[in-house]
Amino acid sequence: MIKAGIVGATGYAGAELVRLLVRHPNARIEWLVSKSYVGQAFSSIYGNMLNIIDEDCIGDDLSALAESVDVIFTATPQGYLSQSLTRDILSKAKVIDLSADYRLSDVSVYEKWYGIAHGSPELIRDAVYGLCELHRDAIRQTRLVANPGCYTTCSIMSLYPLVKEGLIDASTIIIDAKSGTSGAGRSSKVDNLFCEVNENCKAYGVSTHRHTPEIEEQLSIAAGYPVTLNFTPHLIPMNRGILVTAYATVNDGVTVDAISSAYEACYKGERFVRLLPYGTCPQTKWTEGSNYVDIGFVLDERTKRVIVMGSLDNLVKGAAGQAVQNMNILFDMDETCGLDCVPVFP
Amino acid sequence: MIKAGIVGATGYAGAELVRLLVRHPNARIEWLVSKSYVGQAFSSIYGNMLNIIDEDCIGDDLSALAESVDVIFTATPQGYLSQSLTRDILSKAKVIDLSADYRLSDVSVYEKWYGIAHGSPELIRDAVYGLCELHRDAIRQTRLVANPGCYTTCSIMSLYPLVKEGLIDASTIIIDAKSGTSGAGRSSKVDNLFCEVNENCKAYGVSTHRHTPEIEEQLSIAAGYPVTLNFTPHLIPMNRGILVTAYATVNDGVTVDAISSAYEACYKGERFVRLLPYGTCPQTKWTEGSNYVDIGFVLDERTKRVIVMGSLDNLVKGAAGQAVQNMNILFDMDETCGLDCVPVFP
Amino acid sequence: MIKAGIVGATGYAGAELVRLLVRHPNARIEWLVSKSYVGQAFSSIYGNMLNIIDEDCIGDDLSALAESVDVIFTATPQGYLSQSLTRDILSKAKVIDLSADYRLSDVSVYEKWYGIAHGSPELIRDAVYGLCELHRDAIRQTRLVANPGCYTTCSIMSLYPLVKEGLIDASTIIIDAKSGTSGAGRSSKVDNLFCEVNENCKAYGVSTHRHTPEIEEQLSIAAGYPVTLNFTPHLIPMNRGILVTAYATVNDGVTVDAISSAYEACYKGERFVRLLPYGTCPQTKWTEGSNYVDIGFVLDERTKRVIVMGSLDNLVKGAAGQAVQNMNILFDMDETCGLDCVPVFP
Amino acid sequence: MIKAGIVGATGYAGAELVRLLVRHPNARIEWLVSKSYVGQAFSSIYGNMLNIIDEDCIGDDLSALAESVDVIFTATPQGYLSQSLTRDILSKAKVIDLSADYRLSDVSVYEKWYGIAHGSPELIRDAVYGLCELHRDAIRQTRLVANPGCYTTCSIMSLYPLVKEGLIDASTIIIDAKSGTSGAGRSSKVDNLFCEVNENCKAYGVSTHRHTPEIEEQLSIAAGYPVTLNFTPHLIPMNRGILVTAYATVNDGVTVDAISSAYEACYKGERFVRLLPYGTCPQTKWTEGSNYVDIGFVLDERTKRVIVMGSLDNLVKGAAGQAVQNMNILFDMDETCGLDCVPVFP
Repeated sequence: MIKAGIVGATGYAGAELVRLLVRHPNARIEWLVSKSYVGQAFSSIYGNMLNIIDEDCIGDDLSALAESVDVIFTATPQGYLSQSLTRDILSKAKVIDLSADYRLSDVSVYEKWYGIAHGSPELIRDAVYGLCELHRDAIRQTRLVANPGCYTTCSIMSLYPLVKEGLIDASTIIIDAKSGTSGAGRSSKVDNLFCEVNENCKAYGVSTHRHTPEIEEQLSIAAGYPVTLNFTPHLIPMNRGILVTAYATVNDGVTVDAISSAYEACYKGERFVRLLPYGTCPQTKWTEGSNYVDIGFVLDERTKRVIVMGSLDNLVKGAAGQAVQNMNILFDMDETCGLDCVPVFP
Repeated sequence: MIKAGIVGATGYAGAELVRLLVRHPNARIEWLVSKSYVGQAFSSIYGNMLNIIDEDCIGDDLSALAESVDVIFTATPQGYLSQSLTRDILSKAKVIDLSADYRLSDVSVYEKWYGIAHGSPELIRDAVYGLCELHRDAIRQTRLVANPGCYTTCSIMSLYPLVKEGLIDASTIIIDAKSGTSGAGRSSKVDNLFCEVNENCKAYGVSTHRHTPEIEEQLSIAAGYPVTLNFTPHLIPMNRGILVTAYATVNDGVTVDAISSAYEACYKGERFVRLLPYGTCPQTKWTEGSNYVDIGFVLDERTKRVIVMGSLDNLVKGAAGQAVQNMNILFDMDETCGLDCVPVFP
Repeated sequence: MIKAGIVGATGYAGAELVRLLVRHPNARIEWLVSKSYVGQAFSSIYGNMLNIIDEDCIGDDLSALAESVDVIFTATPQGYLSQSLTRDILSKAKVIDLSADYRLSDVSVYEKWYGIAHGSPELIRDAVYGLCELHRDAIRQTRLVANPGCYTTCSIMSLYPLVKEGLIDASTIIIDAKSGTSGAGRSSKVDNLFCEVNENCKAYGVSTHRHTPEIEEQLSIAAGYPVTLNFTPHLIPMNRGILVTAYATVNDGVTVDAISSAYEACYKGERFVRLLPYGTCPQTKWTEGSNYVDIGFVLDERTKRVIVMGSLDNLVKGAAGQAVQNMNILFDMDETCGLDCVPVFP
Repeated sequence: MIKAGIVGATGYAGAELVRLLVRHPNARIEWLVSKSYVGQAFSSIYGNMLNIIDEDCIGDDLSALAESVDVIFTATPQGYLSQSLTRDILSKAKVIDLSADYRLSDVSVYEKWYGIAHGSPELIRDAVYGLCELHRDAIRQTRLVANPGCYTTCSIMSLYPLVKEGLIDASTIIIDAKSGTSGAGRSSKVDNLFCEVNENCKAYGVSTHRHTPEIEEQLSIAAGYPVTLNFTPHLIPMNRGILVTAYATVNDGVTVDAISSAYEACYKGERFVRLLPYGTCPQTKWTEGSNYVDIGFVLDERTKRVIVMGSLDNLVKGAAGQAVQNMNILFDMDETCGLDCVPVFP
């Protein structure tokens, strides 16, 4: 039985980790850290957890806590872990970080896009980017997983095979993403109030969103040359779900079959990737509550562009589900263990 | 391994049965009947089920189908089963009916409130009202379970202990219920269009809703005398969830402690009933996707009324989850088998 | 041209006042007070107002500001006006208060239910309860209007004729109300975040909601004896709208016709009250953006109860619209002036 | 007083025309045609209109009806007007068509994208494309206005100045649009049910949406050469609102100032166009209920692309509001007459 601790358990991603781990057959939650709710029962903060997890939240002495668990999940604000993590902690427990602190290989890119100093740049090279389907082997070897975010998981997985196989001109990539509101977290800001989000739709972070360099780094690895792209997120009046609509010009002679083959080759045998029949548009709700990524595409002969659509549940495959999948890899379990949730509809 | 068939699999309740049964450790779906979608893959109708249930839907020759399964679930319009069911079918397979056809013991009450003739009144006495927590022993003995509806499950479970223990004047009961829209089913009516329901709230079926006599019959059994009450359902712009707010005058001397004790005694050891701390108001979302019923109450000393609030997921404990719970009872399995879903929040 | 000032202009009710007054043919907004946004353009806070109201918000020196306007609207937290208002201010400008500070005639009731000391109890008797349809003549004579809240306007107007005409037993009144989320205001609390409200429904303030004594006081006036009742508000995932479902036992011999006649007599000629055909259930959306109150009812012969349903837009007839209606009365204008908004659907 | 008739009055666009015309100071609704609801009171179909428009709907003998009005609005399915319209009708009444029947100058393009035969191709050249801000002078001269749709109005107005001034490479244009559900109309289809749309997001009509050639034709006129582009609509869980996010590569040396100047020059003095401060992202809700188009943009120096964001209310500037604006032009009234609605927030 893997013993797990969760830091930042009362945010939406942390709470989703609780939901998944509490039914994981081979893992057990040892403690829940929430600086805002120390001493309060978890189920008094998340009423859905009554009779399931009634333990109190505790404070965040990472070093001490690391002694009691096999794996620590950190669902914490940017900068927290880079300030707190040490080799000593890593020697005691494996760490799966849901923040962006170790996702970018170049600390200067991190500091530029996030506007904060990185507290432990020397640990970046220890980290493996935890997009399981693409970096499974490296993940198996590490003690520090940089769990990707929701937008990035959906964007990278949607485009990776096309870039890898050289089917598109990567300099033409435009990613237009739509996200449910849980991606904004549980902090109380006017912008996230029900009345501000409901019956409303807007773009934000246009050309400056922090997930951009993460997508660019991963697609650059696939391409073998530096990729620069546009990424535009939008806030949608729904709780969960990411839909990515990506556009790129296809190279001469690329056909529907070539594109389909690229996806099939790349994701063959992947339990959490569903390739939709040609022309079928994914719906975010088809993945709700599950660890699936759904991918569909259309090739527009008129404009010589492929339109790729990817969708997932931002709190599952886009956060906590992928973190559990990473845990499964780290501890040599079946990758789907505890993750066989059937999407809930409606 | 129990072999199950589902008739009406492409309605919302039927599809929820599919979601639950497909992960049930001791049951297997043998066939899915959908008269509207014969020959079409289930996952082409419910995209969330891609790679999970890709089998085709078939037609509804109940007699023949009954030979191949242990249990038939019917999630069909009112009147369908009463016209189709025979003793022969019942001898081959146990039947769990999610419609109202066998919920009322008095066929004349059925025909009056539903406005249709009952096709097999002689089978009514074979049926057991499938509110598991209240009729577990009788369910175990039957082959025909009349699975209660969402409003009724929530209303009856919220009020039953108070009526049973004589703590309230049952003639003063008023039930004001709020329901998500999936309760209206998947048929295409203008009234259920997104733009008609969203940003809107209304009562309907005021004083005439068909669930009224079902609630009255069950509470009358608890009371030992005939109970007549008001039941007013409201349509709420959400997919899932039932919230019942029930009012009744308490008898002289009844205290908060007496009420709490009645609930605790009645639901002691029940895995799917959660009694909230005094004064806590249940939120429908706390039960989403799960088989829980949450119950809370307030005693208003000024008016001598108790306000009881119950909530559940109308498609789970209010339909498919309870049906699976009934199957578990019918086949002597642990009642929670396949039903340990953790509520999803947000 | 009436010169108007708005204190608390950047709350939802304040902003709705801006929306209505900016198109009022006989009124002009002189200044907008918002303590949180002093020096910021109103349209930078409410983007919908770009090119319409771009003036800056200012601070709240009420005494000085009173010199420059004919009427002050205060859409401020409870206690603000009772601490700030003076006879001097009232001598300079008429005041329409959207808070509860002057709604209750008995200061001890106010202090008990609101839990704060009243800052100017001597002014309470100067105030008139601004439910226009019921207190029009008194409003005309005052300089201080206590503008009723959303729940109270809807509840009182739905029940007043029945109580006044003695058609119901007022001791049996139960009011179950459903409200959109804008009623909770624009302050940033976790409870009002999109993800907490969306796909969710709950009661709150059960037996303790502050609007209760206000409803009781007005209905007691109508009845001629003290009325005590239950009022239970619920939070609904929509921006606007109040639906009240009220229950009461009718007195012997009361018929549908008698009830209809009572409503027609009471609201004859009222431009903002719409009596629905018998049995029609009001929908909150039918009033959205308008100053209408819609009222329908059903008489249940089985239980001898009448179920009255009232609906309105909580920010219009439930707040800003009624405030403008009060202004129209105070300054001898046609009552519908600036209020002929057609409800927006969908 | 202009006498107006509305054909297709009970669809969402038709009902919005009713909402606007009923308060128009210089127009009067003479009759409402609705083939589905002949003989039924309009307010029995749209409850929001009770006491406002209680007249019955009538059938559609266009020729006869044309004699009684000055202008006919047709909010009808594709193909209806092209089959019904004659020069005789046009000689009696001016016609503003909200369908696509006369929007495309080339009948073969129409027949290809819409898949139906055009019933009166000889009338196409009589029609003027009714995007008021761009074709005002031509509109003044015609009797047949082809009122643009919601996606097209928003897309064309967002991009027109950039194309016209040669600031972008028009062959790189990608339009990613998000729409509220009222754009899908009031017909009862499973896809538009509340439970299918709520908590969900999807693209549709990818590379094949019928609005594509309309956008291309208008931008080609602006460019002076044929423009081919990608247009991808998405369905969003909200009632109203269109958000267009458009991407294009800017030509060498194009600056933020050059882009701003192009917009300002093009839309100088336009009452219904609001140019947002640089970097401000429009929100659909800022335009709700009003005839505004809001436009903002960001220039991404990294990718040399401009991201233009436009938003409007699909039923107002995207349908009925623009139709009224066209009527105002046709009859030499102030263009804003009856259209001074302040956007409703929240």
